[in-house]
Amino acid sequence: MARKPVEDVRNITTLGAGPIGAGWAAYFLAQGYDVTAWIFDGAEEEKLRGLIDAAWESLEELGLAEGASRDRLTVTTDLAEACAKADFVQESVPENLALKQSMYEKMGTLVPADVVISSSTSGLTMSQIQETCSTPERTVTGHPFNPPYLMPLVEIVGGKKSDPEAVAWAGRFYEHAGKAPLVMDKEVPGFVATRLQEAIWREALHMINAGEATVEQIDTAIVNGPGPRWAIMGPCMVYHVGGGEGGMRYCLEQFGPALNFPWTRLVAPELTPELTEVVVEGAEKAAGGQDFRTLTREMNSGLVAIAKALGKARKKD
Amino acid sequence: MARKPVEDVRNITTLGAGPIGAGWAAYFLAQGYDVTAWIFDGAEEEKLRGLIDAAWESLEELGLAEGASRDRLTVTTDLAEACAKADFVQESVPENLALKQSMYEKMGTLVPADVVISSSTSGLTMSQIQETCSTPERTVTGHPFNPPYLMPLVEIVGGKKSDPEAVAWAGRFYEHAGKAPLVMDKEVPGFVATRLQEAIWREALHMINAGEATVEQIDTAIVNGPGPRWAIMGPCMVYHVGGGEGGMRYCLEQFGPALNFPWTRLVAPELTPELTEVVVEGAEKAAGGQDFRTLTREMNSGLVAIAKALGKARKKD
Repeated sequence: MARKPVEDVRNITTLGAGPIGAGWAAYFLAQGYDVTAWIFDGAEEEKLRGLIDAAWESLEELGLAEGASRDRLTVTTDLAEACAKADFVQESVPENLALKQSMYEKMGTLVPADVVISSSTSGLTMSQIQETCSTPERTVTGHPFNPPYLMPLVEIVGGKKSDPEAVAWAGRFYEHAGKAPLVMDKEVPGFVATRLQEAIWREALHMINAGEATVEQIDTAIVNGPGPRWAIMGPCMVYHVGGGEGGMRYCLEQFGPALNFPWTRLVAPELTPELTEVVVEGAEKAAGGQDFRTLTREMNSGLVAIAKALGKARKKD
Repeated sequence: MARKPVEDVRNITTLGAGPIGAGWAAYFLAQGYDVTAWIFDGAEEEKLRGLIDAAWESLEELGLAEGASRDRLTVTTDLAEACAKADFVQESVPENLALKQSMYEKMGTLVPADVVISSSTSGLTMSQIQETCSTPERTVTGHPFNPPYLMPLVEIVGGKKSDPEAVAWAGRFYEHAGKAPLVMDKEVPGFVATRLQEAIWREALHMINAGEATVEQIDTAIVNGPGPRWAIMGPCMVYHVGGGEGGMRYCLEQFGPALNFPWTRLVAPELTPELTEVVVEGAEKAAGGQDFRTLTREMNSGLVAIAKALGKARKKD
């Protein structure tokens, strides 16, 4: 399927008047696109515009693209009209499988066949959603992290009937539109970010339940400990930098045995030579040839920048 | 035991010439204290000063306390001299139990009995370290997050023989010195932050091992997803805000059932009414009466500030 180059996308159709749908509409408007927002009921328009206005404050502060304007928003309850001129569709209707399936059934014929339709779904799979769609090849999941207008992450994955080329196109499109796409090979419940987030949340609940830490202590620990680092580098790169000259390999050698400590309720996988190699090679690839001194400088200047930006550069009372 | 008020601390003794010991020395110097750094061998002085100089760049950028100067550092290999005038001792010698015990045995008589001695240990417990110390009541663990000169978190806990009042004093002292103390009731391996960090790390290793995500995808997911939020608010407060008007209670009702989903390898605790109440009350206490709109504004302006500070305010290419 020959698709429009991602640079030529002008008209974006968003579906849904909730925080996710409105968040996407606001984001695409701020990036200078024409946005047509389909809503189920005309009565939702006020809510939709209110959410967009709230998001706009942050978006203005981050800087709008040239020509970006809320005047370039069209709101309609007519699905055929909403879909007719779309170069890309971002669907964020409620998380109800029957509802989503009926929307994709309709969009299957209403949206031009070369246009990618992407679902914000967090709990359903595209394999389920696309089941009754007549043109499922161009349907993908493009799951944002809330709020979609501020968080760069979009997790992209196809369903069973999705064309891998449509998935790749979606990755390129989100990247072009200023997002940080994460293109996955297979559908995994919770994608990547939510799974990782859920791991920390479960451990937190265990600690609270066991009286090992309070809610406030959990939050204090994250905000003043790993949190700011994770705004700069992910957990793998943090260890790669932490390993100094030896990088991730040194880190796994040093702290590998600690995987058997009862530090969390989550049993660790066996650190086989194969897994070690995969992790080490992944970290080295991600480091892109930068040595640990360069990475450490990047980490430290990022931490300083965050502390200053959040007004947390603390001095002795 | 009547101790010096934390505001009257002037002389701090640090032990150890590694990144943690040097990091503490740099931090306390930047906060305007006189610092005496004990090192095992005079040959380590150059390394120590090099580490302090490297840390100083970040500390200067964050802003030094009035009168702060590296000239106020004294380096010595004489433990008696190092301890004589101390108002507070931060010990960061290598993580070797026999070595630490012998240091505490000596410091037990060399450090004035009303002075708190705090260990940076991450892997040992103060109950073990203080075993052969003649004055164990004033010994505590004050575990920093690396690097100690940038990360606010200090996890504080006493050993079996520690005076709870010494633990409380340490909490007040670190707070006064610009740190974010987390005073724990009992010794838990990994404290709070490392346990939580380890949970996410184990899940990441599982995902990499199962081919569900690559090293790069794990990092992309965190840096562009939950990471920046966790620099602003901990996981509990993130959910409390995410729950909107209903706060944490709504969140637990909505997402409680998802705890049974196989989103991570970590089995979740049962969300009993008791655990629910503890989590909800903890979140409400931490929110300190701020409603979700105020908290959302705080979160969003923090995210904007971080994106700008890190040069990540992205626009369409």
